[in-house]
Amino acid sequence: MSLISDVYDVIIIGGGIAGFSAAMYGGRLKLNTLVITSVRGGVIIQTNDIANWPGIEKTDGMSLAGNIEKHATSYQNVNVLDDTVTKVKKAANGFSVSTEGDKTISSRSIIIATGTEWRKLGVPGEEQFSGKGVHYCALCDGYAYKDKIIAVIGGADSAAKEAILLTRWAKKVYMIYRKETIRPEPITLANVEEKIREGKMEIINNANVLEIKGDQRLTHIILDRKYNGGDEFKLDGLFVEIGHNPQSGLAKQIGVELSKKGEINVNRNAETNLDGVYAAGDVTDGRFKQAIIASAEGVQAIYSAYEYLKSKK
Amino acid sequence: MSLISDVYDVIIIGGGIAGFSAAMYGGRLKLNTLVITSVRGGVIIQTNDIANWPGIEKTDGMSLAGNIEKHATSYQNVNVLDDTVTKVKKAANGFSVSTEGDKTISSRSIIIATGTEWRKLGVPGEEQFSGKGVHYCALCDGYAYKDKIIAVIGGADSAAKEAILLTRWAKKVYMIYRKETIRPEPITLANVEEKIREGKMEIINNANVLEIKGDQRLTHIILDRKYNGGDEFKLDGLFVEIGHNPQSGLAKQIGVELSKKGEINVNRNAETNLDGVYAAGDVTDGRFKQAIIASAEGVQAIYSAYEYLKSKK
Repeated sequence: MSLISDVYDVIIIGGGIAGFSAAMYGGRLKLNTLVITSVRGGVIIQTNDIANWPGIEKTDGMSLAGNIEKHATSYQNVNVLDDTVTKVKKAANGFSVSTEGDKTISSRSIIIATGTEWRKLGVPGEEQFSGKGVHYCALCDGYAYKDKIIAVIGGADSAAKEAILLTRWAKKVYMIYRKETIRPEPITLANVEEKIREGKMEIINNANVLEIKGDQRLTHIILDRKYNGGDEFKLDGLFVEIGHNPQSGLAKQIGVELSKKGEINVNRNAETNLDGVYAAGDVTDGRFKQAIIASAEGVQAIYSAYEYLKSKK
Repeated sequence: MSLISDVYDVIIIGGGIAGFSAAMYGGRLKLNTLVITSVRGGVIIQTNDIANWPGIEKTDGMSLAGNIEKHATSYQNVNVLDDTVTKVKKAANGFSVSTEGDKTISSRSIIIATGTEWRKLGVPGEEQFSGKGVHYCALCDGYAYKDKIIAVIGGADSAAKEAILLTRWAKKVYMIYRKETIRPEPITLANVEEKIREGKMEIINNANVLEIKGDQRLTHIILDRKYNGGDEFKLDGLFVEIGHNPQSGLAKQIGVELSKKGEINVNRNAETNLDGVYAAGDVTDGRFKQAIIASAEGVQAIYSAYEYLKSKK
């Protein structure tokens, strides 16, 4: 792309579902819009089977993200820079954004749509079978495991909730936890205990995953203690639920308020605590990390930016 | 459909974008789900050209809503009843919903997705040319009027904002208002005055639309006072911005908290003030009435309902 020398109306940091949905509306609102992204499409491009985007019964992450990007860039006033933002700071009439590629670009407003990174186990096979038996989001990918045997790695409240959700579909859900006892909230624990009584769930404590094995997809895992006498633990799917790291470092840099989890606090209009700074998608403090919600937040963010720019004129 | 005798996990009142998006996730979450709707698809089916649904560069309301409905009903646990809800009340273990068709159905939770009705002018030709030159939402339909002549009917702050937004695309925007002076907020008025100076906007005061005329689409309107000496006012498009009526009567019936505008107050998880009652889409107090936002709110509502039902077990 050729950078225009002028000041952009809005720079969108991050080119996932949220970022490009914002950009598409930026196109329609005739805002001079720049998306800066290191990975076009964001995390969803790692997902092979998507069946929960309203109106599309079956697609994949690459297609969904690609279509939204194509839609956004069909507007002449939407530009994309494939680069990584290293610094954002307040400037005289807005913001100044610096990149790894040594560019410094000005804008009157900013949308942060930098997403989140699911924490990885960091064991052999995890990357290889990601999306092929290894998953990080029950609500996103659990439906594919009807009557299957799956395991959840983790013992926090969120891990237990994901495991309970997975019992909706799976025949059996194992919770594998490195410590003696899982530590969900009392109501969640009561639900876990009910599922254990029903034979739908079982806890394997004091256990760590050493390796994830398979062929085309995951077939089994190796634990650091024998389970039922065997070395190989056969599974159809593995859900890693050991938390996530919201990519909110840039936001923090310019004084955007974060939640305890490090997510960006926004209101229903995707406004942060700072004038001219908006946030959308998985990096925000929304409870449900779903593509359709990220997309809607992108739209709310750019429309709030539009209203802000208009009020400043 | 055959009504099952059991208690539904969730009844969704309203079968527009929000309602069927909620139902689709209800299907995935294995909730026993019933959608009750008088019009499948909701208000969006009146829109011929939709270009702002992320990922789809061009579609129409009937197709978009139809695809989401089809997606929702592809799950066996999602049922649809074509009927009008007349009453919702609290019952022993949840809610009881009565319909015009004399059915009384029980559910453990409720999602209200009853939408809004744009206020109509009520003049001859309005219905005939609705979607064919007559519109009610600038952000939804304004983009189609690049370099065209359009008029906005109304004089409140929201009407003025819609008119300013329309100047992004239109060559000229007339604001037609029945009283002597329009009544936007000061900052909005300053923006209007700037647009007037730029020759992009003009106010026609003390004027009412008597009739909307056209052939395949709107071609001109008849005002109750002569403008520029003529009886016929030639236009490419007319945006009626005299407010909207959120369909929140049922919500009010059971004690759901409404905003001053009569919209349902919800938080970012689509929760109302009542346990077990959620709301989504245009009927809520969200600032931007857009299909993608309604869809996301539907998803938030059903996931909140799922979490509520789980906590009650």
